[in-house]
Amino acid sequence: MRLNHVGIAVESLAVASRFWAEAMGLAGGETELVEGEGIRVRKFPVPGGPAIELMEEAAGEGGVIAKFLAKRGPGVHHLSFEVDDLDRTIARFRALGYRTTSEQPRAGAGGARVTFLHPKDAHGVLVELLERPRESP
Amino acid sequence: MRLNHVGIAVESLAVASRFWAEAMGLAGGETELVEGEGIRVRKFPVPGGPAIELMEEAAGEGGVIAKFLAKRGPGVHHLSFEVDDLDRTIARFRALGYRTTSEQPRAGAGGARVTFLHPKDAHGVLVELLERPRESP
Repeated sequence: MRLNHVGIAVESLAVASRFWAEAMGLAGGETELVEGEGIRVRKFPVPGGPAIELMEEAAGEGGVIAKFLAKRGPGVHHLSFEVDDLDRTIARFRALGYRTTSEQPRAGAGGARVTFLHPKDAHGVLVELLERPRESP
Repeated sequence: MRLNHVGIAVESLAVASRFWAEAMGLAGGETELVEGEGIRVRKFPVPGGPAIELMEEAAGEGGVIAKFLAKRGPGVHHLSFEVDDLDRTIARFRALGYRTTSEQPRAGAGGARVTFLHPKDAHGVLVELLERPRESP
């Protein structure tokens, strides 16, 4: 289980990108609309480590990022850990008494399958478990 | 510039350690008192990536973690990026108009020198810049 990316909620991808690109010196990827989540994301890969993923609201006032910003303001939203087998990992967490925020995994950015542990169970951290899409043969 | 660790503010190192050790499967290091900051920290190295650093209040009600917990509750506190030359990096950020939260770098965990960028300038993220201690000859 290794850290894949740090998800950060921002008011504006364009404005926040300036900090991560110009000041932190990271090269940003393309902006991607994640339809199922109603968000736009832009990844800044960090050489030899997890990426920074900026997340902007795309679904309007009731959306997940809009609600986060209204409650907490911009900042770190989740930590995403990559696992080999998401279904097996979820089963293991549930057997230990941990809850996920949805019954089934969902479609994340880049074609990944993702699920979130309940932040109360992780002491205030929203932990995403992510399984990368299988490479096409 | 690469991610060295993710700092997480917790109510109790002992309780939160159970999640990161038993559920996430990480091996925790020794608990360290960082006197200058008034905090106790415990690092959980993640193979091939940045560590998870749990931080607990050690200085009492007015301490930095106590204030963070009172305001935001437990959760991600900062992202720590490792740099080769902290003084040069600070000079570069200041030249770009970014503010640090203290005039001079401070002593962090493990003998590192650290400074923080002002979270407003980083769109809600508390970014730590960290220079590892030089190896003894």
